[in-house]
Amino acid sequence: MVRWQPGTSGRLQAAALELFASNGYEQTTAAEIAQSVGLTERTFFRHFSDKREVLFHGQELMVDAFLAGLVAAPGEATPMELVAAALESAAELFPDERRGHSRLRQSVIEQNPALQERERHKMSVLAATLGDALRGRGIPEPAATLAAESATTVFGVSFTQWIGAGEQRSMVEIERTVLAELRNLTAARPAAKA
Amino acid sequence: MVRWQPGTSGRLQAAALELFASNGYEQTTAAEIAQSVGLTERTFFRHFSDKREVLFHGQELMVDAFLAGLVAAPGEATPMELVAAALESAAELFPDERRGHSRLRQSVIEQNPALQERERHKMSVLAATLGDALRGRGIPEPAATLAAESATTVFGVSFTQWIGAGEQRSMVEIERTVLAELRNLTAARPAAKA
Repeated sequence: MVRWQPGTSGRLQAAALELFASNGYEQTTAAEIAQSVGLTERTFFRHFSDKREVLFHGQELMVDAFLAGLVAAPGEATPMELVAAALESAAELFPDERRGHSRLRQSVIEQNPALQERERHKMSVLAATLGDALRGRGIPEPAATLAAESATTVFGVSFTQWIGAGEQRSMVEIERTVLAELRNLTAARPAAKA
Repeated sequence: MVRWQPGTSGRLQAAALELFASNGYEQTTAAEIAQSVGLTERTFFRHFSDKREVLFHGQELMVDAFLAGLVAAPGEATPMELVAAALESAAELFPDERRGHSRLRQSVIEQNPALQERERHKMSVLAATLGDALRGRGIPEPAATLAAESATTVFGVSFTQWIGAGEQRSMVEIERTVLAELRNLTAARPAAKA
């Protein structure tokens, strides 16, 4: 199971989020983040290349969590079973106690177009990596890309619900509901064309 | 029916693509683009705010083409029927004679990370606008977002196939095949979980 990084990195990340949210992302320096938890700027830069990476250092973890689900799935799994397995595995990175952190992070990203672009890039890397992994398991095109993009879409919609005000359901519970909704939506046959 | 802009804008765009492809995007100036078709830099800037916009001035047209399909669809259309209608309408912007242009444009974008980001932004705006339009037609969440994202995914996969080497099928033919593939993919029921 993939886990968020504990220790100094985690403390710096929590401190950075608080400062970004209260003082603004642009206005916050790496030195201020470090000082707020009694560390030096030098220590900050041993953990993160810049303040933006505090928000995105979990990217590899997230991709790894999706991939771990694919690797653990049985060999005969269909593309959508693989998608479901990847989503269930990724949900482990979003336990209920992480919800406040994720809400705060999202509120910071929504206030800054450059961070939104970085987030889009993260999601496009996730979709591309999942596509590669599905092709690596013998899923042909375009099924592999469609499944990878669908996994990313379901994750995105589920994440938005999960951090919604008053939401109580777990990430995995939401993901299962959204994935079922996608199935129902696409399974409805279109009317015959004239 | 939505159409690409003819006349001076179209000439500048074709000239820009040729120069970007042969000399590199970074190395090409607005003045060079204008001069290559016997126009002044001043004329260039009456049509485009900068050279990047030469590659993206079709964005509103594309969004409009998707929306035109939604508007024309019958009131009782299901979300996926609306997706299909939007895709069919968008395909009108990509007739066979446009394929060479689209290939050239894609080759330029693939060589420049900033242009790739601009393209991702374009697709995210498309998905968000389609989601708004679907909600405007009374489609609830998360169906509206799932349908909008699926439309964008099918479009992206279809476009990649359409500009592929040796591809002969029309855009609308490819879109129908890819949409059917998405339906088949998601319709397959997963095995019951233990």
